[in-house]
Parts: sequence; C-alpha cells; structure tokens
Amino acid sequence: MKQSHKFLYSAFLPWTDLGNGVRRQIMGYNDDIMLVKVEFKEGGTGALHQHPHTQSTFVASGIFELTIGKETRIIKPGDGFLAPPNVAHGVVCIEKGTLIDTFSPIREDFLT
Amino acid sequence: MKQSHKFLYSAFLPWTDLGNGVRRQIMGYNDDIMLVKVEFKEGGTGALHQHPHTQSTFVASGIFELTIGKETRIIKPGDGFLAPPNVAHGVVCIEKGTLIDTFSPIREDFLT
Repeated sequence: MKQSHKFLYSAFLPWTDLGNGVRRQIMGYNDDIMLVKVEFKEGGTGALHQHPHTQSTFVASGIFELTIGKETRIIKPGDGFLAPPNVAHGVVCIEKGTLIDTFSPIREDFLT
Repeated sequence: MKQSHKFLYSAFLPWTDLGNGVRRQIMGYNDDIMLVKVEFKEGGTGALHQHPHTQSTFVASGIFELTIGKETRIIKPGDGFLAPPNVAHGVVCIEKGTLIDTFSPIREDFLT
C-alpha cells in the first residue's frame, strides 16, 4: 500500500520539468488516488493522450483550450473536466496557469 | 456506470448550501472519482468526520486549520491534504476560501 504524507505543503514538494513550458508537482497519493499540480506557461501543451485511469481536473488559474475526444472548448478558473478511462484528452495553455489533476487509481508511471 | 458531463463549467453547476458558512458544488464524477468544490466563509467548518473513501484536497484559496487524526496544522493556497480511508479529518476556515475535494470512489451519498 503506497501512501504519501497526509499534510501536503507545496513549498516542500519537488517539481519535475516536463518541457514545452510545463512542470509537474506530485502532491499526494495512495493506491486509490493521486493529486498532481501542473503549471503551464502560455503556449505550454499537454499533448492529446489517454490512459486507463480516470482523471478529474480543476482549473486553479489560467485559460486553457481543452480537447476531449473530438470536442474542443475553452475552460477558465473554477471550471474543470472529467476524462473517463481511455478517452483521449489534451490541453493548450492560452493564458499561463495551473491545473489540478486527480487520477484514480494512482499513476504508478509518475513515481518511476 | 455513473458519469457526469466531461466539460465542467462552474457557472452552470448548482450549489448546495450545507449551513455553517459552507456550500458545495459537485463538479464531475464517474464511479471511480468525484470532484467537488467547497466554498467556506470565515469561521465555516467541516466537522471532524471520516468515510471509507480516499479524499485528496487542494486549497484553491483561503486559509484553513486542518485536523487529520490527532494532528492540527494550517494550510494555505497551493497546499493540500490526503485523507486515507477511515481516517478522521476536518477543517476550520480562518480566511474565506475554496477547497477542491476529490473522492475515490464516488460519494454516492452526495447524489441522493
């Protein structure tokens, strides 16, 4: 059973540079859930991709062009999206900002 | 298989007043995950409670006094917490703000 700390202080958690104006901070997790903060510079992209995990995302700041399946729309602070398992999704950052991604189950691939 | 819309626009989603200076907006869900926005006025409380679901929480805004188990600390924007299954947790809002809660599996009790 994997489990992170329970109190998650942003200032003490490491960032991983993903390139293309994007960096990721794994905040917390257990086997069921992983909470991840993703910061985008303007023009940063999360290329269209899919995975067997369910993903929910909350827009903490910034403006994003979001594609899910064949549909593309704009999302803004306070909005979010749900990517069901194996449904393609991707974002282009229109105005710099931060997305809060939660995955179920844990993204084991992010820990290796 | 339950599933919400995939594009989650805050302006079109209803709020539920929970009393004690707290209101909740269910943003999206499927069987695996539920994404919930919770707004607190200063002094608003989420009483100490527990549930079999894993919960991850991100502080979108505001300052909160957070208790997990027997430990109480302050969390601020950008921070978060992980509440493992059946571990007691609760918050007191010190400065008005919004928490982004994600549960796994879905909180069926929130839909009834």
